[in-house]
Amino acid sequence: MSDFQPVSGFVLPRFAGIPTFMRLPHVPLDDPRLPQVQVGLIGAPWDGGTTNRPGPRHGPRQIRDASTMIRAQHGVTGLRPFETMHCADLGDVAPNPADLQDSLSRMQDFYARVTAAGILPLTAGGDHLCTLPILRALAKDGPLGMIHFDSHTDLYHSYFNGQMYTHGTPFRRAVEEGLLDPKRVCMIGIRGTAYDSEDRDFADSVGIRVIPIEDFHARGPADVMAEARAIAGTGDTYVSYDIDFVDPAFAPGTGTPEVGGPNSFQALECARGLRGVKIVGADLVEVSPPFDPSGATAYLGASLMFEMLCAIVSAHS
Amino acid sequence: MSDFQPVSGFVLPRFAGIPTFMRLPHVPLDDPRLPQVQVGLIGAPWDGGTTNRPGPRHGPRQIRDASTMIRAQHGVTGLRPFETMHCADLGDVAPNPADLQDSLSRMQDFYARVTAAGILPLTAGGDHLCTLPILRALAKDGPLGMIHFDSHTDLYHSYFNGQMYTHGTPFRRAVEEGLLDPKRVCMIGIRGTAYDSEDRDFADSVGIRVIPIEDFHARGPADVMAEARAIAGTGDTYVSYDIDFVDPAFAPGTGTPEVGGPNSFQALECARGLRGVKIVGADLVEVSPPFDPSGATAYLGASLMFEMLCAIVSAHS
Amino acid sequence: MSDFQPVSGFVLPRFAGIPTFMRLPHVPLDDPRLPQVQVGLIGAPWDGGTTNRPGPRHGPRQIRDASTMIRAQHGVTGLRPFETMHCADLGDVAPNPADLQDSLSRMQDFYARVTAAGILPLTAGGDHLCTLPILRALAKDGPLGMIHFDSHTDLYHSYFNGQMYTHGTPFRRAVEEGLLDPKRVCMIGIRGTAYDSEDRDFADSVGIRVIPIEDFHARGPADVMAEARAIAGTGDTYVSYDIDFVDPAFAPGTGTPEVGGPNSFQALECARGLRGVKIVGADLVEVSPPFDPSGATAYLGASLMFEMLCAIVSAHS
Amino acid sequence: MSDFQPVSGFVLPRFAGIPTFMRLPHVPLDDPRLPQVQVGLIGAPWDGGTTNRPGPRHGPRQIRDASTMIRAQHGVTGLRPFETMHCADLGDVAPNPADLQDSLSRMQDFYARVTAAGILPLTAGGDHLCTLPILRALAKDGPLGMIHFDSHTDLYHSYFNGQMYTHGTPFRRAVEEGLLDPKRVCMIGIRGTAYDSEDRDFADSVGIRVIPIEDFHARGPADVMAEARAIAGTGDTYVSYDIDFVDPAFAPGTGTPEVGGPNSFQALECARGLRGVKIVGADLVEVSPPFDPSGATAYLGASLMFEMLCAIVSAHS
Amino acid sequence: MSDFQPVSGFVLPRFAGIPTFMRLPHVPLDDPRLPQVQVGLIGAPWDGGTTNRPGPRHGPRQIRDASTMIRAQHGVTGLRPFETMHCADLGDVAPNPADLQDSLSRMQDFYARVTAAGILPLTAGGDHLCTLPILRALAKDGPLGMIHFDSHTDLYHSYFNGQMYTHGTPFRRAVEEGLLDPKRVCMIGIRGTAYDSEDRDFADSVGIRVIPIEDFHARGPADVMAEARAIAGTGDTYVSYDIDFVDPAFAPGTGTPEVGGPNSFQALECARGLRGVKIVGADLVEVSPPFDPSGATAYLGASLMFEMLCAIVSAHS
Amino acid sequence: MSDFQPVSGFVLPRFAGIPTFMRLPHVPLDDPRLPQVQVGLIGAPWDGGTTNRPGPRHGPRQIRDASTMIRAQHGVTGLRPFETMHCADLGDVAPNPADLQDSLSRMQDFYARVTAAGILPLTAGGDHLCTLPILRALAKDGPLGMIHFDSHTDLYHSYFNGQMYTHGTPFRRAVEEGLLDPKRVCMIGIRGTAYDSEDRDFADSVGIRVIPIEDFHARGPADVMAEARAIAGTGDTYVSYDIDFVDPAFAPGTGTPEVGGPNSFQALECARGLRGVKIVGADLVEVSPPFDPSGATAYLGASLMFEMLCAIVSAHS
Repeated sequence: MSDFQPVSGFVLPRFAGIPTFMRLPHVPLDDPRLPQVQVGLIGAPWDGGTTNRPGPRHGPRQIRDASTMIRAQHGVTGLRPFETMHCADLGDVAPNPADLQDSLSRMQDFYARVTAAGILPLTAGGDHLCTLPILRALAKDGPLGMIHFDSHTDLYHSYFNGQMYTHGTPFRRAVEEGLLDPKRVCMIGIRGTAYDSEDRDFADSVGIRVIPIEDFHARGPADVMAEARAIAGTGDTYVSYDIDFVDPAFAPGTGTPEVGGPNSFQALECARGLRGVKIVGADLVEVSPPFDPSGATAYLGASLMFEMLCAIVSAHS
Repeated sequence: MSDFQPVSGFVLPRFAGIPTFMRLPHVPLDDPRLPQVQVGLIGAPWDGGTTNRPGPRHGPRQIRDASTMIRAQHGVTGLRPFETMHCADLGDVAPNPADLQDSLSRMQDFYARVTAAGILPLTAGGDHLCTLPILRALAKDGPLGMIHFDSHTDLYHSYFNGQMYTHGTPFRRAVEEGLLDPKRVCMIGIRGTAYDSEDRDFADSVGIRVIPIEDFHARGPADVMAEARAIAGTGDTYVSYDIDFVDPAFAPGTGTPEVGGPNSFQALECARGLRGVKIVGADLVEVSPPFDPSGATAYLGASLMFEMLCAIVSAHS
Repeated sequence: MSDFQPVSGFVLPRFAGIPTFMRLPHVPLDDPRLPQVQVGLIGAPWDGGTTNRPGPRHGPRQIRDASTMIRAQHGVTGLRPFETMHCADLGDVAPNPADLQDSLSRMQDFYARVTAAGILPLTAGGDHLCTLPILRALAKDGPLGMIHFDSHTDLYHSYFNGQMYTHGTPFRRAVEEGLLDPKRVCMIGIRGTAYDSEDRDFADSVGIRVIPIEDFHARGPADVMAEARAIAGTGDTYVSYDIDFVDPAFAPGTGTPEVGGPNSFQALECARGLRGVKIVGADLVEVSPPFDPSGATAYLGASLMFEMLCAIVSAHS
Repeated sequence: MSDFQPVSGFVLPRFAGIPTFMRLPHVPLDDPRLPQVQVGLIGAPWDGGTTNRPGPRHGPRQIRDASTMIRAQHGVTGLRPFETMHCADLGDVAPNPADLQDSLSRMQDFYARVTAAGILPLTAGGDHLCTLPILRALAKDGPLGMIHFDSHTDLYHSYFNGQMYTHGTPFRRAVEEGLLDPKRVCMIGIRGTAYDSEDRDFADSVGIRVIPIEDFHARGPADVMAEARAIAGTGDTYVSYDIDFVDPAFAPGTGTPEVGGPNSFQALECARGLRGVKIVGADLVEVSPPFDPSGATAYLGASLMFEMLCAIVSAHS
Repeated sequence: MSDFQPVSGFVLPRFAGIPTFMRLPHVPLDDPRLPQVQVGLIGAPWDGGTTNRPGPRHGPRQIRDASTMIRAQHGVTGLRPFETMHCADLGDVAPNPADLQDSLSRMQDFYARVTAAGILPLTAGGDHLCTLPILRALAKDGPLGMIHFDSHTDLYHSYFNGQMYTHGTPFRRAVEEGLLDPKRVCMIGIRGTAYDSEDRDFADSVGIRVIPIEDFHARGPADVMAEARAIAGTGDTYVSYDIDFVDPAFAPGTGTPEVGGPNSFQALECARGLRGVKIVGADLVEVSPPFDPSGATAYLGASLMFEMLCAIVSAHS
Repeated sequence: MSDFQPVSGFVLPRFAGIPTFMRLPHVPLDDPRLPQVQVGLIGAPWDGGTTNRPGPRHGPRQIRDASTMIRAQHGVTGLRPFETMHCADLGDVAPNPADLQDSLSRMQDFYARVTAAGILPLTAGGDHLCTLPILRALAKDGPLGMIHFDSHTDLYHSYFNGQMYTHGTPFRRAVEEGLLDPKRVCMIGIRGTAYDSEDRDFADSVGIRVIPIEDFHARGPADVMAEARAIAGTGDTYVSYDIDFVDPAFAPGTGTPEVGGPNSFQALECARGLRGVKIVGADLVEVSPPFDPSGATAYLGASLMFEMLCAIVSAHS
C-alpha cells in the first residue's frame, strides 16, 4: 500500500491531529512527492465574488476539520479509494482578499501547475467564482462538459451596473470564453425566486440543459442523473457542486440558501450517480462557516467530496 | 410600472438598506399613497396568547430582514407579483405586551382600517391568537372559509382553569363568534401528542375537516390541497399558516414544535396549491426568532409569504 | 386513575416545574412507591465509551427538560399510556466518569435492582456502551432478541490497539457474552464511511441481519419494520435506538453523525412499527447536548421515547 | 446533619440527576417535611409583565440546571449554609401565562402560604413584576426596606397608554401600596438611556436613594454596600437582584440589557455586602434563557443566589 | 418639538416597527425633508477591504435593529439630543461588493452629497476602509484632526504583495492624501501581536500619537481622553471608533479581535470624553454580525453611537 | 533567519492554510528536522480525567485554528520569538479515549521523547490531568517548582469513592510522586464554591502557596506575580495555565467555570509576569470547544500561549 493513506481513527482518534483533507498527507506544490499524486485535494479560500453574505473563504479550513470524520471505505460499495489512487492534500491557493482579478490570476496559476503535474484537482471552495479560474486552467485543450448541482444557474451577465465577475456569473463567462461546451452542460436543482429570466434565456439560447427542482423532485435522483450522464457524454467533464443545491435544513452554512431543495440522502445519491462520467476535476463550493459554526454543513460537504472522489476513482480504475 | 416595486439586488445588495417586507415601500396607514395599495404586508408583533415558549413578538422584524432575500419573480411560474398588484409594507400594529384584551382590540382596529381602505392583508405574526382579531375585522359580512396549515388545531376551549384566549383557542372562538363557517374550514398537518381529544371532538361536531399528518404524508401535498380547495369552495377564504406546520428541522424557530412534519419543498407545494382559492387575507404566524437566531425559519416564512402572495395575485388578476 | 400521572400543561405550563421524564413522579429506587411502578424511565448519564466527540453524559437532563413538551395522549392512536401502566422517573444511575469498568458495574447493579423490582426499563443515555450493562442485567434468563436503530453496527472488535469496551463495540461483546441471540437481532439504518468491513463480516458470520440505509430508503419504514418484527419473533426483545439513526439535520446533537438518514417522520414510524414486539427494555442513546444546545435533538429523542413507551404499553395491555 | 443536604458531586457527578435548586431536596407545599424548612428556594416562571424581549418564564428551570454546579461550601468564608439552616426547593408557582392579574394573584397566594409556614423565600424569576406579589405576601406587617440591584429603577408610572402593571413599574406600585418604606430603599447600578426622568423624579420625591452606575464605578462595591446597609437599617429588608444589574458581557441572557455595568466579581461582592442585613426574602430575576442558551447567565444567577443565601444564613445564625 | 423624534417605547414597543437608526425618521437623499436634517445617521454596508474574517457589510442592519433599544434621553447628563438637533436615518450607501475601487467612489459620492447638504454624518460601518472615502468627502477644505479608537493603527503600507487599499491601510492613505493632519491625530487602545513595527514607525515619523493599551489601562479613560482632546485641539476633527477597540468579551462580533481591551464602561467613558471636541463626522465600524448573531456587539455599537451623537450635539448647542 | 518561521498573513491570509500552532512548520517526532527544534508546541487531545463537562479533547485543534490569528511580533515588547528560538508544531499525542491509564502512559512516553530531544514543551490541552504525565516526563532529575493559574487547586485526594486520577487531583499526585516541590509551588486565582477544605488543608500542610481571587483582585497582577516569581525562585519551574483561571465572560469554553475571575488584560499581565522564571515546560489546558464554538476562548488561549512562549524565549536568550 502506498504512503498516501489517511490516518486511521483506530490509531489516532478522529478529533486529534492537524486536520488535512480526509487525514491525507500534506503535499505542497514544491514537495518532492508531488509527482506521485494522482488526485489533489485543494482549498480555494476566497469569496471575493460574493454579492450577498460572505464567508466561503473560511470553507476549506472547516471542511478539512469536518473531513477527519471520513473513514477509508465507502459504506455502500466497499470501495477504498485511497488504496486505488494516490490522493493528497495540496494545501490552499493564496488569494488576495482585496483584489478580485489578482485572485483569479493566482488561482488560475495554481491550477495550471496542478494540471501540469498530471494531478486531477478536487477543490473545496470558496465561492462559485473560484470555478472560473479552475476551468481556465483545465480547459486548455478545448471546452469541457459540466454537471452542475446548484440552486442557481450562475449564468447572469452582470451585477451592480456592469460588474461582470461575481459568483452569479462564472458560467456565463466560461461559455463566452469557450471553456464549457454548453451542449454538454447540465444544471440540476435550480430554484428560488429570480431577478428575471435572463439567465435561463441564455441557457436556452446556447443549449445548456437546466433541470429545475420541481422536475428533480418529480423524477428522483436516479432518473435525473441518467440524463445528466447522457448530456455529459464520454468527453472530459467537470463537476461543480454548490452546497446550496441541498436544502438549507441540511446545509445552513451558505450565503444564498434557497428553501425546497434535496435532502442529504438525495444529495449523496446525485454524487453517486456520477460514476461512469469522465471527470477531469470537481469542486464543492459555497460552504460558509460563519453561517454554520456547528460544522454540519462542512461535514456534508466533506461527505460529498468523498462521494465525488469515489466516482473519480471508479472512473480511473 | 407602478411605484410599488421592490428594490432590486442588482442595484442595492440584498444585505443593504432598511428592511421592509420584500424590499417594498413603507406605506403607513396615514400615508397619502395608502389608497393605491392593493395588498398590504403587515407585522403583528405580539405573542401575549402564548402558553408555552414566547418570542413571536419578534417575528415581524426578523421576517422583514430575511425577506430581503426574496427576488421579484417566481421561480416556477415566472409570475412577477409586484408588477400585477400594488403591494406595500404597512408597518406594524402597536400591541400592548402586558394586556391581552387591549392588544386584541388594537389589532382589530388596525385591520378594520386596512379593510376599509380596500386592502387585502398579508400578515406576519405574532402568535396564532393574532388571527382572531384579524378575522373579526375581515368577517364583517359573514363567516369565512379557512385553509389552515398547522401541527395543532388551536380549537381548545380553554387553558389554565378557564383562560379562553390563548394561541391554542383562536379558532374555537372564531367559530363561536360566527367568523368562520366550519363546513368551509380545512386543517392540514395536525400531529404530535395531545392533552386529550376535546379539540378534535369539537372539530367533528361542527364539521371542520382535519387532515392529520399521517394522511398528509400518505397522500401528498397535491391531493391534500385539491381537497382543501374543494372544502373552501368559491367563497371568501382566509389562509392561516402556522410555521410549526413544517418540520422543526426546517423551522426550528417556533414555540411549540412537533416533530414529523413536512419538509420545505412540501411546505411550498402546499402554498402553491392555494391558487384558485378566493383569498381575502392570509397570515404566517408563530415564527419565534429567539429560538432561531440564524433567521432560517424567518427566511422560510418569507418564502411562504411570497408563495401566498403569488396565490393572491393569481386569483385577482 | 393511579397517582402515576404526568402534570398537565393545562395546570402547570410546560416550561414550569422541576423537569422529570414526561412530567412523571420521581420514584428513586428506595422510594416506597417503587413496587407499584411498571415502567421505569431511567437516565444513564455516562459517555466514557465515546471514541469521538463526547457529551451524551448530559443527555438525560436535556431529554428530561425537552420531555416536558410531551402530552398525555398519542396523537394518532389516542392511546393514553400513563393511564394504562404505572410509569415513573427512577432518576439517574450514578456513574464514575473517570473509570470505565466501575461505571459498567454501577450500571449493571442499578438495572439488576430495577429488574428485580419487576420494572421494565426505558433508558435515556448516555453513549451506546451503556446498553451493554443493561443487557447484562436483563438477559439473566437467556439471550434476547434486539431491534437496533443506528447508523453504525457497533459490532467492532476493538479500538486503539486493543480497547475492547467503547461505544463501537457493545453488541460484539453482547453476542460474545451470550446476552443477544444474533439470529434474532436486526440492525436498521447502517450507513456512512467505514474503517473496514470487519463489523459487517462479524454480523454475517453470526447471523445478525443488517439493513443498510439504501435498502431502508428503497423499501420504506413499514416494510422494514415488518421484517424486523419477524426477526425478533415472539421472544423477549430489547430495543436500542441510537439517535444518530436519524439524519443529522433532524438530530444534530450527537457525536458521530452520518448524513443521509431518515427524517423525523420516518424515525417515528419506525418506533410505531415496534407494536406487537415483546419488549423487555428499550433505550434512546447518544443524544449529546453540547452539540445541540437548542434541545431539538433531545426533543426528538423524548418523542421517540414516548413512541417506544406506547409500543411497550400496547404490548402489555 | 439534617436531611436537607445537597447531593455531593463526589457521589453523583454534577451533570447527573434531576436538577433541583443547588441539588437540594424537593419539598412541595403539601410535603410533610415543609414545617422543617427554613429557607425555601422557589421558581416564579412568569414574564407576563415584560414590555420588551420575553423569556424569564424559562429562568427557574435553567437556573436549577446551572445551580447543580454549586458546591456546599462558600469559597471565601468557608460557610456551609446547608448545615446551618434547612433549605429546600419548594418547586414553582403555577402562573397563568395569558392573564396578568390572575398570575399576580396566584403568586401572592403561593408566597402567603410560604410565609405562613415560617419559610424565608429565595426566588428565581421570572420578570421583575414577580417581585410585586412577593412583597404583597411578605409586607403584611408593615412596609419593608429594600436593597435593589438593577440597571433600571422599575419606578415608572405606566406604559402603553395606561398599563400600570409591567416589569417597569413594580416598585412604583409597591410604594403606593405601602409595601416598601421608600426611605429604607436603595437602588444600585442604575444606568442606560432613559425615556425621561419621571422615574427618578418619583424616587427623589419619596426619598428612595438611587446610586447610578457612574457613582458605583467611582466608589466601588464595598463603599456602596456600606451605604446600602445603612439605608436598610435594622428593619426587615427585602433584596431584589435583577441580573441586568451585571454587565451584559457577563449576563447576556436578559431582556433589557444595559452596557457599562459591573463585572461578575463586583456582582458577587455586592451580594457579599448584604451580610448583616435583616433579610426577610430575596430574589434573582430577569434571567432569560432564550437569550443565553449556554446557561452562563443562569450560572451567574445561581452563584448570586448562593451568595444571597449565605448572607441570609449569616444573619440568622 | 420637531418632527425628527424617535418613536417612543411607551407607544410602540421597542421590538416592533421597521428598524431605523434609533427609531428616527428615514430621510433618503432625495427626500424633501433633507435640508432640515442636521445629523445624518448613515449605513455603509461594505467590507471589501477586509483581509481577514468578513461580515461588516451586515453591520448597519444589525446596528439599526439593536438601536431600537436606545431611548431618548442620556442617562447621566439628561441630554435629549433629538430635541436639540434634527437627526435622521439617511439610509445606506449602495456599494459594489465585487469591486473595491467602485465602492470607494460610490461612498465618496454619497458623503459628498451629505456634506453638501450641510449634514454632519454619523456612520455605521462597514469595515475600516469605509472611513477613507468619508474623509475624502469631508476634508475638502484641508486636513482634519482625528481621534481614533482601535486595537490596530490601520497604518500599514500594503498587504499581499502590493495591495494598498485594505482595512489595514486607510489612515496611511489618508495621511498621504492630505486628508488628516498627523499632528492632530491620536490613536487609542492599540494592542495585540504585530506583523512588524512598520505601522508604528510611520506613526512616529509623521507625528501621530499612539496610546497603546498598556498605557490606557494604567492611566484610565479620563486622563487619556484629556490628552486626546488636547491633540485634536480646536480644529475640525473626525472620530473613528472601531468596535475592536473594546475587549472581545464585550464585542465578540468583529473580524480581527484582540484580547486585553477596555470593558464596556470604559468604552462609554471614552466616547463621553469627546465632549468639547469639534466633531465634523464620526463612525462606528467593524461590527460583524455573523460573528455575533446575538446582537450584543451591535447593541454596544449603537450605545456608542448614541454617546458620540450626544458629544456632537453638546458641541453644537 | 531559520526555517522555523510562521507563515505571514501578508503572504497567505490568516484564514487560509492548514492550521498548525501559530502557523509554524509541522515537525512530527520522526521528522529529520526534530533535532533543530528548541520549543515544541504540542497538542494533548484528551479529557478522560474530566469529572464534569467534557470537551477539552477538542482543544488542540480549535486552538491551532485560532492561533493562526497570532502574528510574529509581541505588541508591547517588540520581541519576535520565532527569530530567537526554533519553534515548531510537534503534532498531537495519540490518546486512548476509553482508557485513562493507557492515556497517561502514552502521554508520558511522548513527552519523554520530546525531552530526550532537548525540546522544551509548550502544550495545549486537554484537561488538567494531562499535566501529570508531562510532569512525570519532565521531573526526572528532581521535583520542579510550579506557577499555576486556575480557579481550582486540583489538589483533591479522590472522587467517586476512591477515583484517584481525575482533573481535580493531578497536583496531589504530583506532590505525592515527588514531581513537584510544594514549597516552590504557587497557585493563583482560586475561587468558587468548594466541596470542603480538604484541598486547601493539604496545600497548607505541604507548603503550597494558594492566592485566592480576593487577594488577586485586591493586590493586582503585578504584585501577585512578583510573589509567584519569588516562590518559584531560580530553579526549574513548570507553568500550568488552566483557562478557567480567567472569568467565564472572557473564556466561556471550559468545563468547570467559576465566576468572578480576572479579565483578559489581567490574564495577559499574569503571563507577562512570568519573564525571568526558569521555565522548563508550560501548558494551557481545559479549553473546551463544544462550550464555545465561536473560538473566542481558544483565541484567548492561543494569545496566552504566545505570551508564555515570549516568557520562555526571554529567559533563554
